[in-house]
Amino acid sequence: MAEITTTISATIESLLELKKYNSLKDILTTIQPIDIALILEEMPIQKVALIFRLLPKELAAEVFVEMENDSREALIKSFSDNELKEIIDELYLDDAVDLVEEMPASVVRRILAQADPDTRRLINEMLKYPEDSAGSVMTTEFVDLLPDMTAADAILRIRRTGVDKETINVCYVIDGKRKLIGAVSIRAIILASEDAVIEEIMDENILSVTTQEDQETVAQMFAKYNFTVMPVVDAENRLVGIVTVDDAIDIIQEEATEDISKMAGVTPSDKPYLKLSVFEIWKSRIPWLMALMLSATLTSIILTSFEGALLVVPVLTAYIPMLMGTGGNSGSQASVTVTRGLSLSEIEFSDLASVLWKEVRVSVLCGASLAIVNFLKLLLIDRLEATVALTICVTLIFVVFFAKLVGALIPMLAEKFGFDPAVMASPFITTIVDALSLLIYFGVAKTVLGI
Amino acid sequence: MAEITTTISATIESLLELKKYNSLKDILTTIQPIDIALILEEMPIQKVALIFRLLPKELAAEVFVEMENDSREALIKSFSDNELKEIIDELYLDDAVDLVEEMPASVVRRILAQADPDTRRLINEMLKYPEDSAGSVMTTEFVDLLPDMTAADAILRIRRTGVDKETINVCYVIDGKRKLIGAVSIRAIILASEDAVIEEIMDENILSVTTQEDQETVAQMFAKYNFTVMPVVDAENRLVGIVTVDDAIDIIQEEATEDISKMAGVTPSDKPYLKLSVFEIWKSRIPWLMALMLSATLTSIILTSFEGALLVVPVLTAYIPMLMGTGGNSGSQASVTVTRGLSLSEIEFSDLASVLWKEVRVSVLCGASLAIVNFLKLLLIDRLEATVALTICVTLIFVVFFAKLVGALIPMLAEKFGFDPAVMASPFITTIVDALSLLIYFGVAKTVLGI
Repeated sequence: MAEITTTISATIESLLELKKYNSLKDILTTIQPIDIALILEEMPIQKVALIFRLLPKELAAEVFVEMENDSREALIKSFSDNELKEIIDELYLDDAVDLVEEMPASVVRRILAQADPDTRRLINEMLKYPEDSAGSVMTTEFVDLLPDMTAADAILRIRRTGVDKETINVCYVIDGKRKLIGAVSIRAIILASEDAVIEEIMDENILSVTTQEDQETVAQMFAKYNFTVMPVVDAENRLVGIVTVDDAIDIIQEEATEDISKMAGVTPSDKPYLKLSVFEIWKSRIPWLMALMLSATLTSIILTSFEGALLVVPVLTAYIPMLMGTGGNSGSQASVTVTRGLSLSEIEFSDLASVLWKEVRVSVLCGASLAIVNFLKLLLIDRLEATVALTICVTLIFVVFFAKLVGALIPMLAEKFGFDPAVMASPFITTIVDALSLLIYFGVAKTVLGI
Repeated sequence: MAEITTTISATIESLLELKKYNSLKDILTTIQPIDIALILEEMPIQKVALIFRLLPKELAAEVFVEMENDSREALIKSFSDNELKEIIDELYLDDAVDLVEEMPASVVRRILAQADPDTRRLINEMLKYPEDSAGSVMTTEFVDLLPDMTAADAILRIRRTGVDKETINVCYVIDGKRKLIGAVSIRAIILASEDAVIEEIMDENILSVTTQEDQETVAQMFAKYNFTVMPVVDAENRLVGIVTVDDAIDIIQEEATEDISKMAGVTPSDKPYLKLSVFEIWKSRIPWLMALMLSATLTSIILTSFEGALLVVPVLTAYIPMLMGTGGNSGSQASVTVTRGLSLSEIEFSDLASVLWKEVRVSVLCGASLAIVNFLKLLLIDRLEATVALTICVTLIFVVFFAKLVGALIPMLAEKFGFDPAVMASPFITTIVDALSLLIYFGVAKTVLGI
């Protein structure tokens, strides 16, 4: 796909040079809005503004939504008030709200000044919903029907409201107090006879979420129930908006990326990697590296206090990285698996006992397999004394056992007490496991080797 | 949500005991299919079969699709041939294909024997598509229109085909040779006047994928373009099926989970954690632990060969875990970030130079910050000699530098040469970085301390 985009880019640039605006216009209407946005990102702002004016209004709004914030800001600054008003009128309300949230104050003032009073009021209302709530991601463009309408009335109403977002193929039925009482697909309406009453063809068995619901929960409901749209209600069950599946997909992707980042000790960012400055990347990584480096002080202290033992049996030193590495890997296998299970709601805190019992048995199996293979290797290949090999392998069993237990336990506790399990998942657990591994190692060495 | 499910479960069990089948039927029609499936999973198979017979045919099929394979197999065994035929007739083709793929041979033979000849032929055709291809996840139930139909003709055809999957709100326009030439939403059809010609209201600017396309690429296109449905064509651009957004969401979730598992050194599984047996979990984890444990031999060899140096300056040993840990964390920050970028197509192999240049600069910033803080700590708190502190901190800078470079490079190379970057991402890189860290440490110690 990237190659095709590049080719079109070149063509567009050439046509722009040649001032062939009509052909340019024709070409642009054959390209998906996001691809146009990607092409424009590579161009200087004067050219972007020029091309932007060639786009039909609706397409222009769609492209605008897909552009990066910096480009949108530059573009708005190049707009006349009238051009700005035209774009804002074309934007869906949720996109307008996003825009207002992302732009600096001076630009926001201009945007709100050009929005019509109704839109301005709605934007201000939506800004009040908590970040990452259903209210903050919903759109207020939907079709509502009354239960006593006929199918013919409904079709008239659909035509009049003129909502044309592709994902909106469900209408919601509300009573006189705007309370949500049912849903009916556009398909069901056209399949019904013209005088069929909505109340009789609507589906009353519907799920909804409140404006305060966390967006991640909403997205997981889309995944679980295969919805394409989900109604959002206020505390009195009055319909106030809908979340559409395209937003749910974005949320699912974002949340997965965030979890992955946190598990690797990186502060998540909304921007793609290549758009981040070196300083921004440094800022997202250094706190974790610093914290983990300083927490390794614990292992230094432990090692220093056992310096004597290591001088007596120096070969023990050679296996420290293997033991700590195996512990770290065992722990993150458990913690990452449990954390992902929590994210997907496959695991809940009430499953604690069964998770721990599973990990106990898995860790015994894993520890034993590793110890047997390692014991043979230490004797036959490394040619260590049996007692030293035994020390190392007994340590291995204990390390794997505690690593898996700690790895499973910490994310579950984090979830219970309202911390983010993903943050706790990998590097943090490794630090604990590192210290534990050393203590076990020297404890076992003392017992077996008598040092 | 879990609590609500539990409550309904109890009610259903009681009503079943009391043989109140009519009320049971009423209750069941108010519950989402997936929730019914979850409730049934907890019951003995005799009760499941009983409840299943109470469900209306369409709902029964929807519940059946959501059930676990073991339960489906048991249920099929409890069905009469006639009951089995009824369920198969109600299944969407893609779900029937899934079923055939998951069931053991004896059950498959019964299923195919009960399917009508057309369905049997289609199932066999779909089974030929490569695993995880667009062909293998598409459904063949869609509405196709001809360009010279009127809107009224189209509505008649939509009514006749009777496809009622909620996600199908787009019809595809094909020419006389079944080649895909456009798309038109059901909404656009009802908004048009009755005698409007499809050719004039259809959108010709549409994207499609071929049956051979990788499902992950297809899912990423849904995310990028905000589609709810995507047409699938054969090599001659003939329309053969559609992929719907609910399948795309499942693919996105699965792929994210797989990436996360691989990054933590766990072989991915389709089953949720709590459904996996202890032996299955062991099998998914032990190959990685074993490989990583054995590859740590490298660090043992390095440490053994520098045993002499450690005996001269024993305090050096105490900082080995800190250096290796910081290296491992630095490396996995880079590798996990790059791997996720590759998965989301935000990064491609052609970005190699800019990725490496970014990581070089980030690693210098990170390394310097860590070294400064650590140097002060080593001098003021740990009270080490300046030369030893210098050795440790110079090592730190080099370790972070190489760790980030290796961490970014290996996933990019893996992608280029057709390996899975996620597999290469974390534990594998840690092993390389561990060995590198030690070599750097002893190299610097030799130079600075002259040992």
